[in-house]
Amino acid sequence: MKGSQKRAARAREFDLIERHFAPLSRAQPGAFDLLDDAAVLQVPPGADLVVTNDTVVAGVHFIGDEPADLVARKLLGMNLSDLAAMGSRPIAYSLSFAIPSDTPEPWIASFAAGLAHVQSECGVTLIGGDSVSTPGPATLGITAYGTVPTGRALLRSGAEAGEHVFVSGTLGDGALGLMAARGALPGLTDAARAFLIDRYRVPRPRLELGLKLIGIASAAVDVSDGLVADLGHIALASGVSVTVESPSVPLSEAAREALSINPELIEQVLTGGDDYELAFTAPVDAAPALTELSAALGLPISRIGRVGEGAGVKVLDASGEEIRFTSTGFGHF
Amino acid sequence: MKGSQKRAARAREFDLIERHFAPLSRAQPGAFDLLDDAAVLQVPPGADLVVTNDTVVAGVHFIGDEPADLVARKLLGMNLSDLAAMGSRPIAYSLSFAIPSDTPEPWIASFAAGLAHVQSECGVTLIGGDSVSTPGPATLGITAYGTVPTGRALLRSGAEAGEHVFVSGTLGDGALGLMAARGALPGLTDAARAFLIDRYRVPRPRLELGLKLIGIASAAVDVSDGLVADLGHIALASGVSVTVESPSVPLSEAAREALSINPELIEQVLTGGDDYELAFTAPVDAAPALTELSAALGLPISRIGRVGEGAGVKVLDASGEEIRFTSTGFGHF
Repeated sequence: MKGSQKRAARAREFDLIERHFAPLSRAQPGAFDLLDDAAVLQVPPGADLVVTNDTVVAGVHFIGDEPADLVARKLLGMNLSDLAAMGSRPIAYSLSFAIPSDTPEPWIASFAAGLAHVQSECGVTLIGGDSVSTPGPATLGITAYGTVPTGRALLRSGAEAGEHVFVSGTLGDGALGLMAARGALPGLTDAARAFLIDRYRVPRPRLELGLKLIGIASAAVDVSDGLVADLGHIALASGVSVTVESPSVPLSEAAREALSINPELIEQVLTGGDDYELAFTAPVDAAPALTELSAALGLPISRIGRVGEGAGVKVLDASGEEIRFTSTGFGHF
Repeated sequence: MKGSQKRAARAREFDLIERHFAPLSRAQPGAFDLLDDAAVLQVPPGADLVVTNDTVVAGVHFIGDEPADLVARKLLGMNLSDLAAMGSRPIAYSLSFAIPSDTPEPWIASFAAGLAHVQSECGVTLIGGDSVSTPGPATLGITAYGTVPTGRALLRSGAEAGEHVFVSGTLGDGALGLMAARGALPGLTDAARAFLIDRYRVPRPRLELGLKLIGIASAAVDVSDGLVADLGHIALASGVSVTVESPSVPLSEAAREALSINPELIEQVLTGGDDYELAFTAPVDAAPALTELSAALGLPISRIGRVGEGAGVKVLDASGEEIRFTSTGFGHF
């Protein structure tokens, strides 16, 4: 760009930041209204900082015609879900915002409204970032910051043979919701379709659960790549094997409806991702604490399998036979 | 993407991360080899955390045919320069890495080598991020983390009327280097051309200077948008005016050579950006401390102007006349 074009682009950038993003930063004085070189965050004594990043590209990670507020809610929710999986309390986030220069301002306003929605639900504040033009698809990245008591973060590496495997909520809604959003899943009722699409589009990061799992869970992960892949992460990091009993995997009414029409969808349920529930391991004697926690949070917690010696993830059907998945890609499953 | 395609893409992602990026994370145990949901950072007691983000797009922020290691060195250097401007000691960074799926692996290896170069120069470690495919241009974002003694970060807002304005190093090399890289600036010697292009491509973040300016400088900014714009940030945040004496602006031999051929290039020097020097304000009586600091660091520190009442930035020529710039865009200058 020529100097004057570059300056015009920067002026537009400052303008957009001031109008749409600076208001999201007011609760953090260390954000300096997004006007300084960097932001300053206080990490309280006795806490570690937890940081995570997720980036999405229009046409790749979101379909492209979603309302922008839903794109924002999903992106920020994905990041907060990673913090939840570490047992971390979110405090703030930065935004990397690369959009085509002809992006209509209402799209930007809607995106900011989606961020504001999650901010008020989850207690986080925008503290900085960068806004740039791109000739390509919108590319949106968030880096989220949380705190966790020093040395107590929930890792993927603590699972031990003999423990049980648990998940929160219901699984498969994300993958089935993506199919429903694309017009697949014929025969589904409108209510089930709407439920699944909403579950795909709007993650509910399990933040309270993550905080409470410190001291109970031995390893945790959020279900973003798919249950089998994500339990594979725990198995690999912990040096154990994981066996899942498929009939124990908790399903929503809508997912049950989809499976009653096409039982083969169980593969999508178990491998499809985008659920943003927590999967975790815990010793056998943690069951009463988890029952109590489930009741306190009003959130189902289901035992779905066990940790063993060895490596990899195995899924058993109702008759104890191993389910073989047709999809490939992860050599170690 | 279909499930199997998505999984193949994720498998490639894990593979690339393990080969090229995980080795960059080894010095930080809280990076968990880039295998967990998030990273854990310790912030020592008595320190605040400083975070900053810069994102670049191929074809917009870099020409596109630079060696990838230089792209990486510039991107990470830009971020560290923001930390330097806050008086912050860098500790770690996250990478948001959106690249076309046909990006040759040697490009990725070269990019990682550039990061490794800056890591060893500046003492930072990769602790996390996200790697995704994009059908558009490579879009690369870094979020960098540093520490600063609690409450002591250098802000843009502390300048007071009566203080002096200083800059480190030489200015204008970045803007002239971009022109030189594009084949402009006829008549320049090869040595001057090479010097300027290198200055444009490889920022040397003034980290030691930033650390030492705590307790001396009243406000600071890094010169990334251009001297006039960046001093404008200080003027706006501090509620003061800034007057720059153009003849006092420090120039490299190469920049002097370019200006001797075409004196009108002074506009690029003063407004062009990409210098990654620090501009700061300090009380008049800070001069001896700054002289000593300059000698200790082997880095020129030049007084270029003064802070006054009012608003905005004015640049005076050798005869005290105000220089009017032809470029527009920043209404408040």
